[in-house]
Amino acid sequence: MSELHASILKYVQQIVTLTSEEEAYFISLLRHRKLKRRQFLVQAGEVCGYEHFVVKGCLRAYYVDANAQEHVVQFAVENWWIGDLASFITGREASFYVEALEPSEVLLISKEDLTTLYQRVPKFERLFRILLQHAFVALQERTIQNLSMPAKERYERFMNKYPGMAARIALVHIASYLGMTPEFLSKIRREMLHT
Amino acid sequence: MSELHASILKYVQQIVTLTSEEEAYFISLLRHRKLKRRQFLVQAGEVCGYEHFVVKGCLRAYYVDANAQEHVVQFAVENWWIGDLASFITGREASFYVEALEPSEVLLISKEDLTTLYQRVPKFERLFRILLQHAFVALQERTIQNLSMPAKERYERFMNKYPGMAARIALVHIASYLGMTPEFLSKIRREMLHT
Repeated sequence: MSELHASILKYVQQIVTLTSEEEAYFISLLRHRKLKRRQFLVQAGEVCGYEHFVVKGCLRAYYVDANAQEHVVQFAVENWWIGDLASFITGREASFYVEALEPSEVLLISKEDLTTLYQRVPKFERLFRILLQHAFVALQERTIQNLSMPAKERYERFMNKYPGMAARIALVHIASYLGMTPEFLSKIRREMLHT
Repeated sequence: MSELHASILKYVQQIVTLTSEEEAYFISLLRHRKLKRRQFLVQAGEVCGYEHFVVKGCLRAYYVDANAQEHVVQFAVENWWIGDLASFITGREASFYVEALEPSEVLLISKEDLTTLYQRVPKFERLFRILLQHAFVALQERTIQNLSMPAKERYERFMNKYPGMAARIALVHIASYLGMTPEFLSKIRREMLHT
């Protein structure tokens, strides 16, 4: 078994217990993709037919609005999933771009293979049910914080929640994720250094 | 079987097929609660130990920020689930209040019973996995729209997406859900009537 596969199995086994047959079957469905820095995994306007598990690297998903303004919707580092879930489940065009911020390696599973996997190994329903619960709660917290929390506090929470990730990501992307301008985030950072 | 149970089974059977034994077992886990208008199903500061399925009525979930400002995070009418998912999954104090906007009836399942249900009838993993996918995508769309779409367009989308719901809910709550003041939403409505 490759190192890539070992890392996704370790992740899966934290949530559900697989037999060695189930492991082998799951692994047989995965494809592997390497991305250079700034390369795209998903592009808006194309259908996102895969779920992507990050084995190595760092990526961001973003949305470009009608005024050509970018809005970062998600980051992903090792052991995170990233893609355009709306496009994946509906088969409609993706709204998001997913771009590698570092040289990255991902494992992909197609919609067709994931559907078969759910049927043959229902434990994966459980895995993705649990995963989605956490994703939903995290997104809900973020939405609430954007509505009701001062910018400085939102930045502090982000740094505390994802300390390793924050150190790898350019300020401009973190600012976009937190819904503020890079200038404003720089100002907050300077203030934090001097208090 | 009661009418209440018939309505939740009809909903479940749209997504997964249950045997009559599985139906009976599922129904045996549900409790029933009636709420008067303005009565609370969940309160911030208490643990939300149940998932709630709305059989009749209309409810809203909201968050009160540090400045005592309310922010509506979700509405639920017939065939929707509502609660504080973060509290339900972590066992920590709820952040949300869930209040009945109309006389309402809900069916409740406790965390303990839902855990057993997942183990005994894995089809429910599938049901909630699919449910969470849709909830995540809807929340993500809403988050993006709040970041990038003019207020009038957000209101039009909401009216088109949930026409029946919008007619039942006071303007003040819709405004809060859409992240604008009631005065601003009134102005948008007047403009729409005159164009």
